[in-house]
Amino acid sequence: MAAVTSQHAPATERPTKTKWVFLFMPGRAEGNATMRALLGGKGAGLAEMTNAGLPVPPGFTITTEACNAYFDGGRKLPAGLWDQVLEGLAAVERETGKRLGDAKDPLLVSVRSGAQMSMPGMMDTVLNLGLNDETRAGLAKLTGNERFAWDAYRRFIQMFGRIVLEIEGSEFEHALEAAKKKAKAKLDTDLTGDQLKGVVAEFRKIVRKEKGRDFPSDPREQLRLAIEAVFRSWFGKRAHDYREVNKIAHDLGTACSVVTMVFGNMGNDSATGVAFTRDPNTGERAIFGEYLINAQGEDVVAGIRTPRKLSELEAELPKGYREFTEIAQRLEKHYRDVQDLEFTIERGRLWMLQTRSAKRTARAAVRIAVDMVREGIIDRKEAVKRVEPVHVDQLLLPRFDEKAVERARMEGRALGKGLNASPGAATGRAVFEADRAVEMKGKGETVLLVRPETSPDDFAGMVAAAGILTSRGGSTSHAAVVARGLGLPCVVGMETLTVDLAKRTMKVGGRTIKEGARVSIDGATGEVFLGELPTIRPDYDKEKDLHQVLAWADEIRALGVWVNADTPDECRRARKFGAEGVGLARTEHMFRESERLPYVQAMILAATEQERRKHLKKLESFQVKDFREIFAAMDGLPVVIRLIDPPLHEFLREIDEREVARITGLTRPKARAHIEARRAQLHEENPMLGLRGCRLLLVFPEILEMQIRAILGGAADVAKKGVAAKPEIMMPLVGTMGELHFLREKVMETAAHVEKERKTKIPFKFGTMIEIPRACIIADEIAKHTEFFSFGTNDLTQTVLGISRDDAQKSFLTRYVEEKVIPTDPFVSIDQDGVGAMVRIGVERGRKTKPDLKIGICGEHGGDPASIDFFHRAGLTYVSPSTFRVPSARLAAAQAAIAGGVVRDR
Amino acid sequence: MAAVTSQHAPATERPTKTKWVFLFMPGRAEGNATMRALLGGKGAGLAEMTNAGLPVPPGFTITTEACNAYFDGGRKLPAGLWDQVLEGLAAVERETGKRLGDAKDPLLVSVRSGAQMSMPGMMDTVLNLGLNDETRAGLAKLTGNERFAWDAYRRFIQMFGRIVLEIEGSEFEHALEAAKKKAKAKLDTDLTGDQLKGVVAEFRKIVRKEKGRDFPSDPREQLRLAIEAVFRSWFGKRAHDYREVNKIAHDLGTACSVVTMVFGNMGNDSATGVAFTRDPNTGERAIFGEYLINAQGEDVVAGIRTPRKLSELEAELPKGYREFTEIAQRLEKHYRDVQDLEFTIERGRLWMLQTRSAKRTARAAVRIAVDMVREGIIDRKEAVKRVEPVHVDQLLLPRFDEKAVERARMEGRALGKGLNASPGAATGRAVFEADRAVEMKGKGETVLLVRPETSPDDFAGMVAAAGILTSRGGSTSHAAVVARGLGLPCVVGMETLTVDLAKRTMKVGGRTIKEGARVSIDGATGEVFLGELPTIRPDYDKEKDLHQVLAWADEIRALGVWVNADTPDECRRARKFGAEGVGLARTEHMFRESERLPYVQAMILAATEQERRKHLKKLESFQVKDFREIFAAMDGLPVVIRLIDPPLHEFLREIDEREVARITGLTRPKARAHIEARRAQLHEENPMLGLRGCRLLLVFPEILEMQIRAILGGAADVAKKGVAAKPEIMMPLVGTMGELHFLREKVMETAAHVEKERKTKIPFKFGTMIEIPRACIIADEIAKHTEFFSFGTNDLTQTVLGISRDDAQKSFLTRYVEEKVIPTDPFVSIDQDGVGAMVRIGVERGRKTKPDLKIGICGEHGGDPASIDFFHRAGLTYVSPSTFRVPSARLAAAQAAIAGGVVRDR
Repeated sequence: MAAVTSQHAPATERPTKTKWVFLFMPGRAEGNATMRALLGGKGAGLAEMTNAGLPVPPGFTITTEACNAYFDGGRKLPAGLWDQVLEGLAAVERETGKRLGDAKDPLLVSVRSGAQMSMPGMMDTVLNLGLNDETRAGLAKLTGNERFAWDAYRRFIQMFGRIVLEIEGSEFEHALEAAKKKAKAKLDTDLTGDQLKGVVAEFRKIVRKEKGRDFPSDPREQLRLAIEAVFRSWFGKRAHDYREVNKIAHDLGTACSVVTMVFGNMGNDSATGVAFTRDPNTGERAIFGEYLINAQGEDVVAGIRTPRKLSELEAELPKGYREFTEIAQRLEKHYRDVQDLEFTIERGRLWMLQTRSAKRTARAAVRIAVDMVREGIIDRKEAVKRVEPVHVDQLLLPRFDEKAVERARMEGRALGKGLNASPGAATGRAVFEADRAVEMKGKGETVLLVRPETSPDDFAGMVAAAGILTSRGGSTSHAAVVARGLGLPCVVGMETLTVDLAKRTMKVGGRTIKEGARVSIDGATGEVFLGELPTIRPDYDKEKDLHQVLAWADEIRALGVWVNADTPDECRRARKFGAEGVGLARTEHMFRESERLPYVQAMILAATEQERRKHLKKLESFQVKDFREIFAAMDGLPVVIRLIDPPLHEFLREIDEREVARITGLTRPKARAHIEARRAQLHEENPMLGLRGCRLLLVFPEILEMQIRAILGGAADVAKKGVAAKPEIMMPLVGTMGELHFLREKVMETAAHVEKERKTKIPFKFGTMIEIPRACIIADEIAKHTEFFSFGTNDLTQTVLGISRDDAQKSFLTRYVEEKVIPTDPFVSIDQDGVGAMVRIGVERGRKTKPDLKIGICGEHGGDPASIDFFHRAGLTYVSPSTFRVPSARLAAAQAAIAGGVVRDR
Repeated sequence: MAAVTSQHAPATERPTKTKWVFLFMPGRAEGNATMRALLGGKGAGLAEMTNAGLPVPPGFTITTEACNAYFDGGRKLPAGLWDQVLEGLAAVERETGKRLGDAKDPLLVSVRSGAQMSMPGMMDTVLNLGLNDETRAGLAKLTGNERFAWDAYRRFIQMFGRIVLEIEGSEFEHALEAAKKKAKAKLDTDLTGDQLKGVVAEFRKIVRKEKGRDFPSDPREQLRLAIEAVFRSWFGKRAHDYREVNKIAHDLGTACSVVTMVFGNMGNDSATGVAFTRDPNTGERAIFGEYLINAQGEDVVAGIRTPRKLSELEAELPKGYREFTEIAQRLEKHYRDVQDLEFTIERGRLWMLQTRSAKRTARAAVRIAVDMVREGIIDRKEAVKRVEPVHVDQLLLPRFDEKAVERARMEGRALGKGLNASPGAATGRAVFEADRAVEMKGKGETVLLVRPETSPDDFAGMVAAAGILTSRGGSTSHAAVVARGLGLPCVVGMETLTVDLAKRTMKVGGRTIKEGARVSIDGATGEVFLGELPTIRPDYDKEKDLHQVLAWADEIRALGVWVNADTPDECRRARKFGAEGVGLARTEHMFRESERLPYVQAMILAATEQERRKHLKKLESFQVKDFREIFAAMDGLPVVIRLIDPPLHEFLREIDEREVARITGLTRPKARAHIEARRAQLHEENPMLGLRGCRLLLVFPEILEMQIRAILGGAADVAKKGVAAKPEIMMPLVGTMGELHFLREKVMETAAHVEKERKTKIPFKFGTMIEIPRACIIADEIAKHTEFFSFGTNDLTQTVLGISRDDAQKSFLTRYVEEKVIPTDPFVSIDQDGVGAMVRIGVERGRKTKPDLKIGICGEHGGDPASIDFFHRAGLTYVSPSTFRVPSARLAAAQAAIAGGVVRDR
């Protein structure tokens, strides 16, 4: 979700006659549902319900602008506000016939926070405001219930003391506990009126001790202080953190609704409850909620008494239940969305206290969207908008059984938290080295790879693992990126974790955990547990509702969705997920498999071209098989193959000397010496900017030759069997026309050779990555000699920003994001103003030469919804995310098309 | 000089009636001086002289187009050419009354190469063509000189055999030597006619043996073969290499002039010589040349007989001398430039064989330019164009005495060659470590620092050295770049050299040279010698002619010329050289001085901000002194100070543990452990793209604070003494507005503090480096909050091209340049299409916000003439080269203004 920014102008610039307060009185409210920004979700909902003739206790809402003016004015209520509050109060008093502070018939109110964006439980609310010694007595007399009045008073002082006076809540809880102990009471409800009176006295002592003054008895002072406290809660730590996580702007402010109190705790004909119009967990179409007889709202939340299922209310209070379910259905239809409702029944009379769109799980979101289309409530476009791309991701990932997680926490097996780098849940035996992971996997074990951090050499081990845990690195570290690519659960940067590679142990929270011990990680939350937690693995084929939503998304979207896939398995899976082609098949992974790596290494060590060619011949025989299988898996769909990209020294990290000696025919000491020398020679200060990509292919054109032979040979092989192979050969890191001309010529020359050898025409396309700024600048020239572009936005981000992805996370990027130096991590969501501007230059110039040039993007950003929205606007042809993000990318692409209103002909 | 490209269309596209041959007959030539591209310098010169009525032997020139057509057609003479040659030949025969192959009165010709750009001695010429047994006899009869005829024949076969038939020249030389030995002759001239006859017989045997055929006796066949050989010599190795070095396009082709032979060896009334209209070494205004009586041109060049000074000719052949000097003066006036002439006097009659603009030394270029303005031959603009920026550089550098170099070569003290990385000559004792360099310098020794390669830690040692020699690295390696910055002679990448740091020796060419041995390096040629060679050091103050040329340049140029200078000494020197401000004062060098480094290290090791601040306080006291001196040196001129830029780990390379322990109060083992841990923590995969520049200042704002305090404090201190300090504070590596806002606020806040403390206003400017692509893209935004930009084209080149300067040279960049993948090393001369385009975006956007924004460039490119030309066209305000390139930059800036025709108001 993009950050929501405020449209408020600073208070000082506004006319003095600002309307700060909006009334809602039975049948007539000054606000409505469209005024969320000004009245908050709660205020807008109360106004809308009021206008709809629903039973809402009278009250008024103070605007979010008042909150902002409060902060802009140095935490002072803005001019005119208090007068408007008093006017609103007078109106409420006229409506109810009660008066705030009236000892005989006191008006009590709740003071409730409510922001534009729902922030459940993040800000504060004060109930029962207006009580003091006199009004309490009046309330007792009026209700004929001393205990109720003392309990309401006790609750008020406790809540007001904690929230408004900012006294540590535990002070009150201790006093209450002491009273219960003294009275030998188990529950709060076991305390008698007299005993509660004692508690009130204790609470007032606490206030006097902590604040040096008596508890404020003037209800108007109470009201003013409570309003300020609600405003202040906007910048409370919880609320602030929530906004950070959910990317909500800090300058939106909260509204504050002052609502006549109704009491669900006035006896057994009273109740209070919360409900959803459909099940927010499963999406099932049935009202779903909880209630308590004779209780106030906070009791439901606090969990002191166990609430009952809403359906049981029908038997207890049939009239209230019927009224409520009718209203709930009306509201769902009215809002055309599942509603999250709060209600109170006071002495048999139903009052609606809140309605808002319900938060829902991924599963529920999908089901509700599909059901509502079927029910004719929303159209397909709306359904596509209602499901979030992250919902789709979540649906495809294994997750822990929530009860098992609870149990593990209770049993003290929660080891702590790292960064949630790649969602999904995984359980397995901890291993600390890639080789061991492969070995144990070979023995049929499920393993979790635990490392200080990972490198490309760990790839085989990562593939073998069910999940990855590292003690270092951020959300764009190697581990995180590869894990997301593989769709593996991954937790990184768990700072309390120390891995001792020598001893094959890890230490965390004072515990030493040996290799082979069972560990569980939740990549969605970052939590790590000791022991095995049962996981639930969804089956994509069975997700019929999801298929429906994605089918609708496909009707709408303009962007193609391809996939980054390197293996036939990945290709097959991606195809099932709806990928329309392979946007990036990386060939270097094909070099890293254990039986091949020694040949790659021998090739790198070779002193002469002739010797290199000998080893390349062997590698060709491996690669041709890979390509055959990939083409077969993608039969009829294009496969963009990027030639070898990483620097050669990456292949020399771990070496099987014996095998290399065997292949090269050297003695082992000689092989060792060669390896050392070559390593030193290939060492680079900044490998990211070094001898890699097409530079490597220029220096060693025989590698290029081998790869072209393998690709086109593979294509020719499967074509004979009737497979429609569509290879597209892609050059990495091209930055100059000199490189492009050289490479293109070499490719065409080799292709002609292969065609001659095989006596057949092998159709293919030729294109380039656009991943360094210079390529964007000369894109018009490049387009003259290429059939497609693919933006490599990972590298482009590194070069446009001058930031090393490998290093920045640990040193400054996290800090930059935290301190808002930059709005988001540019490796997660594309930096639209910088990297995006460069992408636009590349697109514009490329299309100047070839208006219908096919332009894709195959960086990590291809799976990020905000980036997908940008790529849609930039006019790209397709995005190519990692396999498991293909479905969510289809959805995000459709949402981008809806938002932009532009549908291109694909 | 920019590469000269050909305007020739391929021969196949030309009409068939192409004119391949241009005649020159006494008084009437078909070509003229403007047709250099088509006729070559020689052909155009012969035509022009002919038209001017000067005595030029009749002949014709075959065009460069014919040469290109020859290669395009697969080394075949193009259609129609041979016919035109025969027509030309007939015309010459008519003119001279002689006929090629005529036994009675044979026409002999020379066949001479001549390209558009002068390539002295690089291509081939055949003299005496037309001789065979019959014509030789005819020649003998005609001249009455048997010996002369045999000698001419011998020379012809030898020259033709070597050049046209491509027989190893030594074969002929050995045969000649054998004949001399047999005849007990010392010199060739001691051989009699008969003996020469024997030599001819031997030569013909050699031809038969080597080529399996007789020496071609048909003069027409000789002519055709010779023309083809001249064409082929265009792609001879020498010519190819020369063009590479001098950036001359390979597709220009050579012309071929066929000229009637005149003989300077027809007796004592004959002579041959070469001359310059002014001394090409000193520029002195006096005819300068050499001649030999009774000799052919090749004898002058071959050095077998010692030529005599031209002035002596007056006594020997007064008429010829007078005629020649008159013609020489006419030609200089005609061409308005010093001429390089060839002449022959045949039996008293003068013939002009060549005129061309003379190559000249730096000193001569400057003097001639100034003199010619005074003489009214050229104007100031022309004078500024006549001196090359590299001439200016050369004039300021120490150089070896040429005779001493010759002697060293003779004595076998030439050790070999590396890359000429930074010009100038240096002699000193070889040392292999920076510390030792400092130590021995301290003892009053002059040292040369010899390293495998250098790193920033060697800086102090480099400063202490008189020159630098490395066995690894290219022209943009650390050693090369720093040396150029310091104006130190430097030879890098001497591959035959091995440095043994442990033994403190170096090995080269089988010799082992110990520390302390005297070595000499010539940074202009890359040559390295054993022993001390005397150097000549120019005194800038005495270079009055240079001052004059630069003063004229200053009148013309639009670009400002500032300087990159980090020390007061450099500032003072640069000011003398004409720098108008400091465009880049790097503060990190101030951190590296030996007494300070331990404090820097302690600061880096500090665990808390408080501790860091303690050490920074100490560093502030050092830096404030630096700035005081720099401001005083630049009194009245702006000084742009870049805050600390490199990653912190660069300061942890070499550590004095004892000193760090003392400063931090840790025990030595603890200090060691801290250092190790911090090093590991700060390690980066790609430090170039890591935690450096403004990122460092954001993470450690206390460093920024310290530097601002030191800069403004220093400025305030000297202001009190009447110095007009003009500090301009520059942020490195800014890429986002978030960074800029944070840094700007911090700077302004600190500045306000310092002003309050000192109770004085301290004026300064605030600006940014523009050195990553994103900064160019958001330059309009950046300009809103800054007072100046300075392009850091080194880093911008790295990021726009995605190339690491540290690595690329050794791995692929040299190869790229060699194989023409890119036209020039982008770190030497700015990549105009890529990096330049990005610079233009930055300039355009910055000036959109602030039309008069001051924009400089402080990368290495600021000293490169081609780059300066680009920066002029891009509308920059100033360039800031290293100190020693300030004078040449002034000249280059003026040349850019002349070329562009645009003069901006500075």
